[in-house]
Amino acid sequence: MEIYLAQNAGFCFGVERALGIAHDTAKNSSIPIYTLGPLIHNPQVVEELRKEGIIPLENLDNIKEGILIIRSHGIPPSVIESAREKGLTIVDATCPFVKQAQEKAEMLRKADYQVVVLGEREHPEVEGILGFAGENAVCVNDHNNIKNFSLSNKIGVVSQTTQSVRVLSRVVSELVKNKREVRVFNTICTSTQLRQEAALKLAREVDCMIIVGGRNSANTKRLAQLVKERGIPAYHIETEKELEKGWFSDVDKVGLTGGASTPNWMIQRVIEGIRKLSETGLAYKGTDVKRLPI
Amino acid sequence: MEIYLAQNAGFCFGVERALGIAHDTAKNSSIPIYTLGPLIHNPQVVEELRKEGIIPLENLDNIKEGILIIRSHGIPPSVIESAREKGLTIVDATCPFVKQAQEKAEMLRKADYQVVVLGEREHPEVEGILGFAGENAVCVNDHNNIKNFSLSNKIGVVSQTTQSVRVLSRVVSELVKNKREVRVFNTICTSTQLRQEAALKLAREVDCMIIVGGRNSANTKRLAQLVKERGIPAYHIETEKELEKGWFSDVDKVGLTGGASTPNWMIQRVIEGIRKLSETGLAYKGTDVKRLPI
Repeated sequence: MEIYLAQNAGFCFGVERALGIAHDTAKNSSIPIYTLGPLIHNPQVVEELRKEGIIPLENLDNIKEGILIIRSHGIPPSVIESAREKGLTIVDATCPFVKQAQEKAEMLRKADYQVVVLGEREHPEVEGILGFAGENAVCVNDHNNIKNFSLSNKIGVVSQTTQSVRVLSRVVSELVKNKREVRVFNTICTSTQLRQEAALKLAREVDCMIIVGGRNSANTKRLAQLVKERGIPAYHIETEKELEKGWFSDVDKVGLTGGASTPNWMIQRVIEGIRKLSETGLAYKGTDVKRLPI
Repeated sequence: MEIYLAQNAGFCFGVERALGIAHDTAKNSSIPIYTLGPLIHNPQVVEELRKEGIIPLENLDNIKEGILIIRSHGIPPSVIESAREKGLTIVDATCPFVKQAQEKAEMLRKADYQVVVLGEREHPEVEGILGFAGENAVCVNDHNNIKNFSLSNKIGVVSQTTQSVRVLSRVVSELVKNKREVRVFNTICTSTQLRQEAALKLAREVDCMIIVGGRNSANTKRLAQLVKERGIPAYHIETEKELEKGWFSDVDKVGLTGGASTPNWMIQRVIEGIRKLSETGLAYKGTDVKRLPI
């Protein structure tokens, strides 16, 4: 059996940057450090951070002092405000691409657009963007959603950074049909798109795909979903412990990818895990565990 | 045979308004009156206007004095400027919906958008709008066209007022895929859309359709094309003289519509024309020649 790793698998710029900021903060501070929700959507990485003293919280209710790291997905301005009022020190690790979506949403609100945010209503990134988009903003997850809302004639559109361009394009094409003005900022992050394209490209060449990443990671789930939609057997796992020998029984080539919040060390562990399964007849070819050629 | 007239057939608001302005100008002036190109795209109406002293010109080269009526389709600002320099009196009969498209194009240009105009490159309305949209503006007539241009990342979109919403929607959905910002003004005139929808609705109920209007009228041509695309026999005529008996040989129900620049008196003449053909067995039912119920 041959193992191939997709291009663009693993950490994106925003996640890498947030982790760097977190490590630096931990190194240089003696007061408690918190994040609201996990810093990134990967339980194994968050566990490592906890060892450095970075504690994820569900809310700020019982916190009186310390540093609050704003996680890569960002948070609504009202929450930042209340953290400031408590006297917490704010360290902003919001992904710059997410920040751009927030800024565009805020600008649109100030210019009297009703803002439509394409994304998953429950995702923290979307919650943050909606905080900047104003009270009459709405969240849709596809073009069919739009008709549930009575929208104004002056619409601004921004997107969760991990959405697919195809869905954004459909949403906008519906809005344009009966609105006088539609102003769209394509705030989808290129790295998400590249990662998805690379995963689908690899999926066409292999017999099954392993997608590594947090079960709470929206972009990892979407990677798995996209691959499955093409009819390729695909398994979404968090760690190498979940690998099952049965998945590889009729498989000559297996493809691997990881979400934006999946560390390379975890991808490497999964590769090693598959290697170990090879003791009973699976042959692992390739030396570069970071990027195997397709 | 029964004859049905589509809802919304004939003169639109902008054409009716332009004709009103032209008639008033002719009544109250003793100096020569000109239009650049025909006031509206209907040769029979233009002929009537000529009798009132309103002369359509191809250009202003040999004109030294008089009144220039800006026709319903509008003209580029540079042409208005040169008419003013000649000392001509300007009477503006530009359709207010076309004017809105011009104003949005101008606003987008001033705000540093590269303007994409959806429309027919050779149509005077588009030529006018492009005049306001700036030197780097481009004209496309469908979504396939877009890839012919290397466009900026900040795109403004306006449409010729008579385009179909479906095509606008497709063009925008393409642009959104790889541009950072796309700001769309849907400047399509509702009356065009309503006329098209009513024609298609009627076409489903009848055996053949007669579309009355100038052969130089883009919106009339599009009406005929839309009906033909649905597989209904459709005949685009300017006057009742073009009616052919053979068209109605196997026809129980005939539908009629007219473009935005088609006067009601011409539609009535066509109805009378079909009536006359009925002498040999065609039965004309209906009393309201303006709007026969479907």
